[in-house]
Amino acid sequence: MPTRILVSEVGPRDGLQSIRSIMPLEAKCAWISAEAAAGVREIEVGSFVRPDLLPQLADTAAVVRHARTIPDLTVAVLVPNLKGAQLAVEAGAHKITLPLSASETHSLKNLRRTHAQVLDEVCSIATMLRELPAESRPHFEGGISTAFGCTIEGDVPERTIVELAEKLMHAGCDEVGLADTSGYANPAQVKRLVKAVRAAVGETALNGLHLHNTRGLGLANVLAGLDVGITTFDSSLGGLGGCPFAPGASGNVVTEDLVFMLEAMGLDTGIDLERLLQVRGILLNALPQEPMYGFVPEAGLPLGFTPASRRT
Amino acid sequence: MPTRILVSEVGPRDGLQSIRSIMPLEAKCAWISAEAAAGVREIEVGSFVRPDLLPQLADTAAVVRHARTIPDLTVAVLVPNLKGAQLAVEAGAHKITLPLSASETHSLKNLRRTHAQVLDEVCSIATMLRELPAESRPHFEGGISTAFGCTIEGDVPERTIVELAEKLMHAGCDEVGLADTSGYANPAQVKRLVKAVRAAVGETALNGLHLHNTRGLGLANVLAGLDVGITTFDSSLGGLGGCPFAPGASGNVVTEDLVFMLEAMGLDTGIDLERLLQVRGILLNALPQEPMYGFVPEAGLPLGFTPASRRT
Repeated sequence: MPTRILVSEVGPRDGLQSIRSIMPLEAKCAWISAEAAAGVREIEVGSFVRPDLLPQLADTAAVVRHARTIPDLTVAVLVPNLKGAQLAVEAGAHKITLPLSASETHSLKNLRRTHAQVLDEVCSIATMLRELPAESRPHFEGGISTAFGCTIEGDVPERTIVELAEKLMHAGCDEVGLADTSGYANPAQVKRLVKAVRAAVGETALNGLHLHNTRGLGLANVLAGLDVGITTFDSSLGGLGGCPFAPGASGNVVTEDLVFMLEAMGLDTGIDLERLLQVRGILLNALPQEPMYGFVPEAGLPLGFTPASRRT
Repeated sequence: MPTRILVSEVGPRDGLQSIRSIMPLEAKCAWISAEAAAGVREIEVGSFVRPDLLPQLADTAAVVRHARTIPDLTVAVLVPNLKGAQLAVEAGAHKITLPLSASETHSLKNLRRTHAQVLDEVCSIATMLRELPAESRPHFEGGISTAFGCTIEGDVPERTIVELAEKLMHAGCDEVGLADTSGYANPAQVKRLVKAVRAAVGETALNGLHLHNTRGLGLANVLAGLDVGITTFDSSLGGLGGCPFAPGASGNVVTEDLVFMLEAMGLDTGIDLERLLQVRGILLNALPQEPMYGFVPEAGLPLGFTPASRRT
């Protein structure tokens, strides 16, 4: 098991896109700054989608520019297409993720594109990125969503995921990620799928999982991922958000609970958990109507809790 | 990993003892019958404690007598002392668990006894049981509570748990169990502690874990237990209950979510999940004031979900 884990906060993108409230730019920036100050090293700060589709994320360029001023923070964004990737590059994002839904039905609903069309877009983006000077070229991830099942299609065959991962890498992605958009994943499946994809595209081409807690298995699935060498886990502060295009699927893994589990296990996240728990206040103030989730914020830390970094 | 797992429902004991409402005997019996009909093979139906201390469980003898009429159900009860064990034998319980709190401070608060006093009681119970004919002799478990930390003492040294497990076995228990009374356990600790205790008392003398979900790690801890060969997991329907003597510690693992995880992983529990989900209605009707927990009851089963037993 690896000892250093990257917790990638996706709340400012995945959380905010799935709620009706629009968080003011100032609060977004305060949230991102506070989480970075607590030790979070990667934050997905927004998405370059059409503002009429997701007005909650219309200020993504401004958020990226703010986040870029924070030292040692990897600023990630979601992009649905070449246009979005160009905007991400202009704004200065360090990492872009293009989602490809393993379920083609979900892909049509979510990105309004077939698999072939999405893969064409990946090629165009990769070509555009290759022409950039190295220092302004973002890391390019292909994120396979509904990888563990789809609310419309049900089971998605493992072979489909493996083939899509191969195609994404051939089309020019630097790495692939797997997302449990529907909250269908179970630990046995996580291990099987990670192993199968890595066998096809190589150990270093799959590092991250985006897991939801829709059926309460989020952290168990993280544990399964750790067991097979996954080092990056997405999560959302306060469990904010979900997938608006997958009915009934809500609830990212809660960042506070994830960091607690990892640190309690002796896995260093670089995050100061007590400071992280305070960041929740920013969300509660800015989004008073929205439900917040998480067990550790409710129960508090165990008496005598020692984070990984402070152990002898 | 074992393929057949025993889910031991503890709601009628651990759940009901920690809430103020008193569930009528009729509702308890209906609950137990319905869970058994859904395929649950072991239920902890009550506790033979002084009725003035836990009036919620004052009818335990009657509940045991009802549960004994259900074919193929292991009827378990908690007993704090010899007197309780005698009542359990009279009522016809198949299994008795005597709790011993690894934290001596917690032991004094919970059972009003030091470790030495509890171990003396275990000896007396074992002596009494040995004199019974085999067919009326219940299985005798020593349950080590606060095994993963205590809300009053904090860390409890691993060596303490191992020594107590040895002493319980020497005093005459048939097996020991480990309970995360405080909800402090993490997966790495679960694996370490199970291995350490088994190394001391033997593989077959530790089969069960009683895990709480206080900090959201319940199912991740179950997964860790599975990884080291644990085959019995306690849980509570609707997540009812907790430990009234450990402030801030609430929330058993939710039976519905536990069964979902196991079945989704292909581990046969013998439980019909759809029928189990319907049993929740009995609790909602009988305890309208009490909060119920669980993710699967909220989100529903995945589209096309196939339980372990129906796979080819």
